[in-house]
Amino acid sequence: MTADADPRDATSELEPEIRDEDGRLASGFVEEVAEAISANDSARVRDLSGRLHESDLGDLIETLGPDDRPKLIELLGKDFDFAALTEIDETVRVQLLEELPPETVAKGMRELDSDDAVYILEDLDEADRARILAQMPALDRVALTRSLDYPEDSAGRRMQTEFVAAPPFWTVGHTIDYIADTDGLPDTFYEIFVVDPAHKLLGSVPLDRLLRTRRSRLLSEILEENPRTIRATEDQEQAARMFERYNLVSAAVVDDAGRLVGVLMVDDILDVIEEEADEDLRALGGVTGDEEISDPVLYTARSRIFWLLVNLATAFVSASVIGLFEGTIQQMVALAVLMPIVASMGGNAGTQTMTVAVRALATRDLGSHNARRLVRRETLVGLVNGVILAVLVGTFAGGWFQNAQLGLIIGAAMVTNFVCAGLFGILIPLTLDKLKADPAVASGVFLTTVTDTVGFFSFLGLATWWFGIGLGG
Amino acid sequence: MTADADPRDATSELEPEIRDEDGRLASGFVEEVAEAISANDSARVRDLSGRLHESDLGDLIETLGPDDRPKLIELLGKDFDFAALTEIDETVRVQLLEELPPETVAKGMRELDSDDAVYILEDLDEADRARILAQMPALDRVALTRSLDYPEDSAGRRMQTEFVAAPPFWTVGHTIDYIADTDGLPDTFYEIFVVDPAHKLLGSVPLDRLLRTRRSRLLSEILEENPRTIRATEDQEQAARMFERYNLVSAAVVDDAGRLVGVLMVDDILDVIEEEADEDLRALGGVTGDEEISDPVLYTARSRIFWLLVNLATAFVSASVIGLFEGTIQQMVALAVLMPIVASMGGNAGTQTMTVAVRALATRDLGSHNARRLVRRETLVGLVNGVILAVLVGTFAGGWFQNAQLGLIIGAAMVTNFVCAGLFGILIPLTLDKLKADPAVASGVFLTTVTDTVGFFSFLGLATWWFGIGLGG
Repeated sequence: MTADADPRDATSELEPEIRDEDGRLASGFVEEVAEAISANDSARVRDLSGRLHESDLGDLIETLGPDDRPKLIELLGKDFDFAALTEIDETVRVQLLEELPPETVAKGMRELDSDDAVYILEDLDEADRARILAQMPALDRVALTRSLDYPEDSAGRRMQTEFVAAPPFWTVGHTIDYIADTDGLPDTFYEIFVVDPAHKLLGSVPLDRLLRTRRSRLLSEILEENPRTIRATEDQEQAARMFERYNLVSAAVVDDAGRLVGVLMVDDILDVIEEEADEDLRALGGVTGDEEISDPVLYTARSRIFWLLVNLATAFVSASVIGLFEGTIQQMVALAVLMPIVASMGGNAGTQTMTVAVRALATRDLGSHNARRLVRRETLVGLVNGVILAVLVGTFAGGWFQNAQLGLIIGAAMVTNFVCAGLFGILIPLTLDKLKADPAVASGVFLTTVTDTVGFFSFLGLATWWFGIGLGG
Repeated sequence: MTADADPRDATSELEPEIRDEDGRLASGFVEEVAEAISANDSARVRDLSGRLHESDLGDLIETLGPDDRPKLIELLGKDFDFAALTEIDETVRVQLLEELPPETVAKGMRELDSDDAVYILEDLDEADRARILAQMPALDRVALTRSLDYPEDSAGRRMQTEFVAAPPFWTVGHTIDYIADTDGLPDTFYEIFVVDPAHKLLGSVPLDRLLRTRRSRLLSEILEENPRTIRATEDQEQAARMFERYNLVSAAVVDDAGRLVGVLMVDDILDVIEEEADEDLRALGGVTGDEEISDPVLYTARSRIFWLLVNLATAFVSASVIGLFEGTIQQMVALAVLMPIVASMGGNAGTQTMTVAVRALATRDLGSHNARRLVRRETLVGLVNGVILAVLVGTFAGGWFQNAQLGLIIGAAMVTNFVCAGLFGILIPLTLDKLKADPAVASGVFLTTVTDTVGFFSFLGLATWWFGIGLGG
């Protein structure tokens, strides 16, 4: 009975110990747990972390040293909630699962919802996965294996196979009584799915609607006829778009024949949305692959070098453009001093355009209906800002080297490069998207090639022509 | 009665007309609506778009030309769902609201949940807002004004003030009957809040738990004692982290005295998460402010120029570093050809590190507990990849200019710059975060300054020293 307790007091008693004001795990708390672990003090460990939310427990595991992690699980024993494993980085999870005995893992996994179990199993290699599955009850094993048969990143992988389904001829009252009387319903559900005898989905009834309706009415009278569904083989990102667009908290997953096979929950979708935004962001920053901050040095270095090699090729292309004008530079070293300004400013302007374009493509805000308008807009924005910066840079550069003509030339080169930056900043992602490539991953390197090449070529070329200095060495 | 209909058939009858396979509005559909609008064919307009989901209707409005937008709303008349306005860009929304008569707007807003109404009102200027509020019923006006009094981007602004609350001494059965018998409950709710007579929050009962419990039990016996709550004045991002961490679908919003004042729903949080990731991504791409793809050229140009000006200062700093070595370059033009390679490759490597660091800070994965480890890791990653690329670049450059010493020098400069890139790529965001500045916004420009300066200085400086060429012109 808590009628008199102030829940905020209770929270503030609990929270500050675990997390600091920024929402990170408090270092004092982590140290206390680590100490209890090294003292092998199972009672204290259980006291400190036995009743943590799976998410806090997951963060705790990540924060602990690699040796303390399996020990924590061991000391917690049956108080360890395996759902915490869904909250930690893949690298840490795989490592941990390899160190734990398969029976312990299988036992812990039995308590999990199917989506959590699949999430944990999917990253393991074939052998580890088989070893764990072999220890699971047959029914669970079949369900998990079926989910794992769906392609990676599909709705089928993310769905939960536990749901509440009812036939259309049940009354509201009967359904409510059924829920009250039945054990083994899923832990959490927000709607009842109405299915025919062949398990084809007929519609859904959100719980609030069920509660609002007279007991005598039939489910068939109150069901939502065309609930948003997603096919099990479809990509999870497509599901995420649907959840976002139609403000869903759960959605039925159906097979190709329209039969209900599972349910997607919004908390899993939240993870998908976060992942997706993360991928775009990293891709734009030249970090591809699924690097995590817990990865070791060599693994990280290897995952990043591919991108650096691609950029190296680009860098040599622009170097060779400069190489064309060695003679000009030798006669006017000021050009070498100023040329990076033209190239890098063009790169910055192009990146602004590209960032907007990549994100608009990802959220489906940019498409054939407005592509033309945006290409025009971005080119014009490039022109406007190019002219403004050209005046500034031209004035500075002309003053610096006491050469008004040099100021004019760098200004003209800036305008040229800014217009190209705007134009290609949007055309490159649009083209990659048309070719079904991910614009976030490859746009940057193409764009830099354009802005560097155009920047160096226009500036050095104009100077060579204007000052009448011959090409070559 | 839909017992025999296949919902997937019904969906596929409806969907392909409105959206193409990529999930964008189908251009055929948009054209049809535009034609009906120019023909002033209100019946056809209503036929096509009168029963669209608010999200589809919002996308339709954005896609139509600026003149067609108010016409669509006019032709739809009372079939227009004002919730669609929450789904469109701010620029378009504000424009539209200025063109519509305040009575029409006020009437449409009365149908909305309070969070949607606040979302629409908050972007309007004082005068427009007052004009619309004046037309609303007094009770709604008071609630909306109170929400608007909370700071921008706070939980109080995003919350819905409609919720279901019950006293702790009610039985489950009584609560279920109350819900069935009461009109005017919120459209959607996932939990019942249990409050004391002073409206202090005692706990919450999720609907599925309510349904699973025998009718005779008291709410006080089954309530979740310490539900996750958020203070109305707290930032919406803090709320988003809480939803993500603890997999919530709704959460109580309380005032400073712990009284229940509203509820946050996961669909609004989804928008917050998307916005937040968007902001980080744009900031890293040099797009600050709330630019939208529907903004006009001059507005966009202006919003982007600040960032370009900041970068211009950086560019002049690196130019002046090059200026120190004019004499060296004049005697060995190959240096001018190769120097951008050192600077840009360092920039790329640093950006990789910075991207990972900025994102890890945003998701609270990076904090004081692992900062030291990550600084070491990133520096080592810079060293490893620096050495590999140094060998490649050194070999190429040495071959290109038939000068092995030049190859050695560029190699040494690359290693130096890569180590600095890794080190500063993480130290800069960490420092900005410590100083309570947003690392996503400012890290890039500092980092480029470092990698350009170190790149040019190490390469040209080493060459000057090695080849014994005097400094200056």
